[in-house]
Amino acid sequence: MSSSDFHKEILVIDGLQYCNWSRSIFEEMIQGGVTAVHVTIVYHEQIRETLMRIAEWNRLFELHTDLIMPVKSANDIELAKRLGKVGIIFGAQNCSPIEDDIGMVQVMRELNLMIMQLTYNNQSLLACGCYEKEDSGVTRFGRQVIKEMNRVGMIIDMSHSGERSTLDAIAISERPIVISHANPTSFHAAKRNKPDNVLKALAESGGLLGFSLYPFHLQNGSDCSLVQFCEMIAKTADLMGVDNIGLGSDLCQNQPLAVLEWMRNGRWAKVMDYGEGSASDADWPAPLSWFADSRDFPNITQGLLDRGFNKGEVGKIMGQNWFRFLKEGMAPE
Amino acid sequence: MSSSDFHKEILVIDGLQYCNWSRSIFEEMIQGGVTAVHVTIVYHEQIRETLMRIAEWNRLFELHTDLIMPVKSANDIELAKRLGKVGIIFGAQNCSPIEDDIGMVQVMRELNLMIMQLTYNNQSLLACGCYEKEDSGVTRFGRQVIKEMNRVGMIIDMSHSGERSTLDAIAISERPIVISHANPTSFHAAKRNKPDNVLKALAESGGLLGFSLYPFHLQNGSDCSLVQFCEMIAKTADLMGVDNIGLGSDLCQNQPLAVLEWMRNGRWAKVMDYGEGSASDADWPAPLSWFADSRDFPNITQGLLDRGFNKGEVGKIMGQNWFRFLKEGMAPE
Repeated sequence: MSSSDFHKEILVIDGLQYCNWSRSIFEEMIQGGVTAVHVTIVYHEQIRETLMRIAEWNRLFELHTDLIMPVKSANDIELAKRLGKVGIIFGAQNCSPIEDDIGMVQVMRELNLMIMQLTYNNQSLLACGCYEKEDSGVTRFGRQVIKEMNRVGMIIDMSHSGERSTLDAIAISERPIVISHANPTSFHAAKRNKPDNVLKALAESGGLLGFSLYPFHLQNGSDCSLVQFCEMIAKTADLMGVDNIGLGSDLCQNQPLAVLEWMRNGRWAKVMDYGEGSASDADWPAPLSWFADSRDFPNITQGLLDRGFNKGEVGKIMGQNWFRFLKEGMAPE
Repeated sequence: MSSSDFHKEILVIDGLQYCNWSRSIFEEMIQGGVTAVHVTIVYHEQIRETLMRIAEWNRLFELHTDLIMPVKSANDIELAKRLGKVGIIFGAQNCSPIEDDIGMVQVMRELNLMIMQLTYNNQSLLACGCYEKEDSGVTRFGRQVIKEMNRVGMIIDMSHSGERSTLDAIAISERPIVISHANPTSFHAAKRNKPDNVLKALAESGGLLGFSLYPFHLQNGSDCSLVQFCEMIAKTADLMGVDNIGLGSDLCQNQPLAVLEWMRNGRWAKVMDYGEGSASDADWPAPLSWFADSRDFPNITQGLLDRGFNKGEVGKIMGQNWFRFLKEGMAPE
């Protein structure tokens, strides 16, 4: 079987995208053999705004029913694979969709919000983000929310959280958690990447790391090579085990600068915050040559095979691990 | 001049009340010689709900225009005194009225929200509350909000904040801040009371402490005597200076248990939180015999005179300090 045929056979699950959604992007996903994508529906949007985003997605599902379908349980991922569609898994990058209300956890889960980050860079009501000077861990409200997320089957994502909050969440949560899009700090020292002690604790608790393809998270930035990327995966597999890793591309196609500024500044900053960029480098980073959109997923399959992973392992990294994790994590207690 | 005549002459400003407002309560304020009250308009209410509370107050001003008037600047406090009315100063006990939006600081100030706590017991987006296990100080968003509050003339209140956040706020704010209703920990060790190092830092920065008459903040609780209360004031005057202290009664007249539960649990707790109470002592504390409502303010004037404060000092503690502090703090930059 050729590598290309192999890629078409496996489950390919991308653990994070936030594109300026359109029919052509969905078509690229199909062309890239993508089975399901964890899509960010909101960053800092609160309840009312989150409902608007969901309504917009409902409209997309209606308009592009031949290409995409909502994921309401793990079965829908298998169904998407059978039907040749892309399953769309809703996620939030901040806890804004529940505002200050624990009752909103179940409400949002009933609206198919499957994954929620407890914090996005800054301190939230639940936990601390990776950009604060200091992290005092999961808050009183956060403890109750983790318990409630466990109960209803909403997955805890700590991609943008601080170290201590992440370790706290791993310890407090009765279910494995995810870091859907980040890389090891040992590969590239960025605030958003994760040190080995966190990755080990994540793996030991049955959690999952999705490797990011966002240039700011990569060695050599936009010039990071596929070989370097796959080498990082190999090293992390040694650290975490090949069952606890997957992809989380952080692909943000066709988004204007205003969206990047929204991610970074929300409504909280009067003085512009440049996040991972800077005043002189405020814009989106240039994409990788070998991963510019979803059509490039077969490159990663090939790269992993070339690195020496066997087909079973490549299948796990490309999607099977995410599938197993989602199946367990999205099932209500 | 009798003590009673003296009381009628001075400015009496209460630094915190949250009553179930009614004409009879306003009449009691007049009878008690109250010039102005910092009233809590919201605890955990967000923007839309805060506007509802303001609309309710507008209706109260319309209905009881012979008794109360809104305070839109310090001049209105002097005007209230001249007219024999009670000036109503709006305040929020949590930062919920700005939600996640720094632009709401000015908007709320334009609606005459003069005082805002950065946090109420729990971690907020701005700072840490006194009930969290650990306090990592003022957050990134918090720093920007403090600067904006300084700019528009909205006073920072740290009554329900943790120690480190309070010290941070004192250091970061370019204007003096207030602890509107709390007592020294040395008088009664409660999570809500403040240690000497915080009180000293507050005084050194020109800040103000309002002494609480809420039984949970008092030695011997509801049995605390007026003599004990005035003795505490004398000791604190030694520590902080007589210019940096005032009253913040925390009077919560005629409020049902549901309101206490709202204060303590907001929307964040699924497991009931009893705050300063407990499962076996969940209700409002019994009131003090010598301070049951606003008609009892003359008792405090008398108690302070009896303790040996001179009239100038009593005038400061009963309201003149608050007046000076408000006049400076509410003026926009």
